[in-house]
Amino acid sequence: MEEKILLSHGSGGKQTNSLISDLFLKYFNNEIINELNDSAQLKLDSSKIALTTDSFVVNPIFFKGGDIGKLAVCGTVNDLAMSGAKPRYLTSAFIIEEGFPVEKLETIVKSMADAAKEVGVQIIAGDTKVVEKGGLDGIFINTSGVGTIYENVNIKANNAQVGDMVIVNGTLGDHGMTIMCQRSGIDIEGELKSDCAALNSLVDSMLEVCPDIHVLRDATRGGVAAVLNEIADISGVSIELEESSIPISEEVKGCCELLGLDPLYIANEGKLCCFVPENYAAEVLEAMRKHPLGSNAAIIGRVVEKVSQKVYLKTIIGGKRIVDMPSGQQLPRIC
Amino acid sequence: MEEKILLSHGSGGKQTNSLISDLFLKYFNNEIINELNDSAQLKLDSSKIALTTDSFVVNPIFFKGGDIGKLAVCGTVNDLAMSGAKPRYLTSAFIIEEGFPVEKLETIVKSMADAAKEVGVQIIAGDTKVVEKGGLDGIFINTSGVGTIYENVNIKANNAQVGDMVIVNGTLGDHGMTIMCQRSGIDIEGELKSDCAALNSLVDSMLEVCPDIHVLRDATRGGVAAVLNEIADISGVSIELEESSIPISEEVKGCCELLGLDPLYIANEGKLCCFVPENYAAEVLEAMRKHPLGSNAAIIGRVVEKVSQKVYLKTIIGGKRIVDMPSGQQLPRIC
Repeated sequence: MEEKILLSHGSGGKQTNSLISDLFLKYFNNEIINELNDSAQLKLDSSKIALTTDSFVVNPIFFKGGDIGKLAVCGTVNDLAMSGAKPRYLTSAFIIEEGFPVEKLETIVKSMADAAKEVGVQIIAGDTKVVEKGGLDGIFINTSGVGTIYENVNIKANNAQVGDMVIVNGTLGDHGMTIMCQRSGIDIEGELKSDCAALNSLVDSMLEVCPDIHVLRDATRGGVAAVLNEIADISGVSIELEESSIPISEEVKGCCELLGLDPLYIANEGKLCCFVPENYAAEVLEAMRKHPLGSNAAIIGRVVEKVSQKVYLKTIIGGKRIVDMPSGQQLPRIC
Repeated sequence: MEEKILLSHGSGGKQTNSLISDLFLKYFNNEIINELNDSAQLKLDSSKIALTTDSFVVNPIFFKGGDIGKLAVCGTVNDLAMSGAKPRYLTSAFIIEEGFPVEKLETIVKSMADAAKEVGVQIIAGDTKVVEKGGLDGIFINTSGVGTIYENVNIKANNAQVGDMVIVNGTLGDHGMTIMCQRSGIDIEGELKSDCAALNSLVDSMLEVCPDIHVLRDATRGGVAAVLNEIADISGVSIELEESSIPISEEVKGCCELLGLDPLYIANEGKLCCFVPENYAAEVLEAMRKHPLGSNAAIIGRVVEKVSQKVYLKTIIGGKRIVDMPSGQQLPRIC
């Protein structure tokens, strides 16, 4: 195998085949992908399907707490989990810059395989394109995912109801702040790292105690602010947050003060917002806290009647301010 | 709407939402995508599923006979059709360079919507990432596709059998040669244009007369040579081609002579190789020729016993030469 990716690795001939067999199939090894058909052929035990796609262009590609490969698996798995679906199969499509080190590619592919194994999904179809040097910056990955939707769940963005409690599974802003610090060379002492994680097993444990979860969303680009504004908009409700209840790590709090940023707008890659009926909130919270990915879970607000503005925050000092939809660009290539 | 794509169009906030509602939903308008959930939620009437993914980085993005949008729909539809599946749903994920003209994006999106409509598939989930200027060259599109596999078909790459006839649906090399000429500024007189097309309805008409098609492959990157070598390898057979039977347009023939290229190695985007039992070959050929995308269909060879080499060509002048797996790079960014 060469040390660097060549244009010929994307040309559909001998070098493409050796990249597939020596690298991709070494890690994404399963009966379906090994058949090497134009499409993966599979059987599903349910006809209710969730389908999603996401491209990943994160920079840097290796960061504290993860890399673009882990992110590409977890991100798409999370989109399936947020629909009340059991993640089953992923596709992975690479666009690689000519000259990209094969060693780095192998690290990324292995990281994808490890994440997929942990989640219990199979990567069953793929594609590789190589673009001439300068045609893109390093590597981009698209993953698409198929899941089977659990019976008796009805989790939808338009399903937030007045009285619902809003719960998050832990501290906000860890992923975005990690990327931001790493990219700008700020060296934070302490434990700051990306929260990049697959949330499907956490969702499973939440559904076990409350099948009637109304809305689930992972708070990625635009942070919790973007997600809650979207849900308020689609469901036609308002949401009131309690600033004092919002879990934020000391590191993120410190960086936000330093940089003048609001943690509600910073991206997460392992945090979800959950809307549940009030009478289930305590049980769901308890189930979340028992899970390794929910130990800092907290109820951060509730759905109230629709008023003129949509999401607002009762501040620690007793005021109330609007949390608007983010506008403009905080930081490109966060995911 | 702005005239150019901004980084904020990919940041998950207000501008992302307006891009989605003002552009994507305007063209990809269906009940499923309009729900704006993290995953598209759908019901399939079959549990036998085909799943595929493909990224498109073609340069130039607009070419004679198509554009990157049409290509992105047809390419993935074809991968599904080659598995004997009815194409049902597509996802579409855009990675766009900051500053890309919105007008061009709209042309591409409209072209995708038109192609999807013609095929009868719905685009039901999407993603948009924007990368800073210079981070990629223009626009890349990933489409992933879900199809339902027809009952009683068993089309697989490992299913080529001795005695099978190899049929193609028309002239070879049109797409690759169009891109090559356009990129290098060669102005060909005549009708040379990309053959970019969705082949699912052609496959339907072939399956109608012969449900027992053994192998189907669209001959994209690496051309017919790559596809036949792959099938020979996976099925463990050899293939003998008849040079005089291979349909090639006058324009492609001329360009190939001029540039010293072999049309068997040039990419197609609307051509398939089909392996059928000998006693069905005439009927399949007739069905193909009746279809608008198969009027120049031809039997180009047959599967013979495995010998030391895999694919060979009986030349017009009576010789015999090996058609090897392509090696190296003919032309990057052909699709």
